[in-house]
Amino acid sequence: MAEQIARREQIREVAGSLFSERGYHATTVRGIARELNLQGGSLYAHIASKEDVLWEIVERAAREFLERVAPIASERGSASERLTRMIAEHVRIVAGHTSDATVFFHEWRFLGGERRQRVIEQRDAYEAAFRKVISEGVRSGEFRPADPKLAALAVLSTVNWTYQWYRPGGELAPDEVAAGFADLLLRGLCKEDER
Amino acid sequence: MAEQIARREQIREVAGSLFSERGYHATTVRGIARELNLQGGSLYAHIASKEDVLWEIVERAAREFLERVAPIASERGSASERLTRMIAEHVRIVAGHTSDATVFFHEWRFLGGERRQRVIEQRDAYEAAFRKVISEGVRSGEFRPADPKLAALAVLSTVNWTYQWYRPGGELAPDEVAAGFADLLLRGLCKEDER
Repeated sequence: MAEQIARREQIREVAGSLFSERGYHATTVRGIARELNLQGGSLYAHIASKEDVLWEIVERAAREFLERVAPIASERGSASERLTRMIAEHVRIVAGHTSDATVFFHEWRFLGGERRQRVIEQRDAYEAAFRKVISEGVRSGEFRPADPKLAALAVLSTVNWTYQWYRPGGELAPDEVAAGFADLLLRGLCKEDER
Repeated sequence: MAEQIARREQIREVAGSLFSERGYHATTVRGIARELNLQGGSLYAHIASKEDVLWEIVERAAREFLERVAPIASERGSASERLTRMIAEHVRIVAGHTSDATVFFHEWRFLGGERRQRVIEQRDAYEAAFRKVISEGVRSGEFRPADPKLAALAVLSTVNWTYQWYRPGGELAPDEVAAGFADLLLRGLCKEDER
């Protein structure tokens, strides 16, 4: 049993790398099997289809964001504090799993009907958590009047794009990236007297 | 001759849609030909290879950004004014050609050796234009002390990601999106007295 779980995890990992490097459509079950030194057919003992592996990767990523980041929106603290923590946690997830993040952000579109719909719902729920904090900050007067939808998009764009350029072991640790982004998004570039 | 140019443009357009929808590797020359009601073989009268079409799309997008946006960095005006105009022009390009932008941001990785290298250089030059304006704004005291590299990344992440969610005819016009993003990135979410 433990061996089966370990094998599944390996499959997910290899598939995640291949999907992120070449794209879902250009990856074959045979290609995944080859990386694992298995016969194509024997992979089907572990997975029902290529789409199932994609689904597992996408679902796991969505769960990480929804379970680790979204609940912060409903915790105590000022809107700034909560948003700063949400940014930090999101960047940590992306920086910790850049392949899976790439698959999550791009390849989810290739999931079939119901699964695709489910991801759209999860993304909406996730965005709503960011909009909630921003709206609350605007309402309480902590934030300037801003369009919560556009502001949430700007915040999410900045943190999502991390998967495109972040490489572990580079100049900046994930927490430094997050702190820089949070500072910029919350306080902006301009000095107060330049406004 | 005019007909040949028109045909090439059609090929680029169809290939751009297919590359952005299914990915470069999953698109075949035969598939491009089918969309144009041509035989696969006759497409080769117009293009030498699938990679050549990818190269044309990527090159054209890179040129748009480098010719329309980057020079603003060296024009007159405060750092805020220049950065605001760069953001607006970048969003206009992305919103005006979402398929090509998707191909540019994702599929360029599949170009071979020298071409890939050339795109990396163009991206570096482009990022440098944003870093230049931000550094100048920090030096002149117009901007708060910020890491120009991280700030340029935040600005570019926000405007790049537009291709992921922007759909023509939606709620917001490209200029409204750009104005909202520029305001947020330059002035931040927080009110002055909350800092």
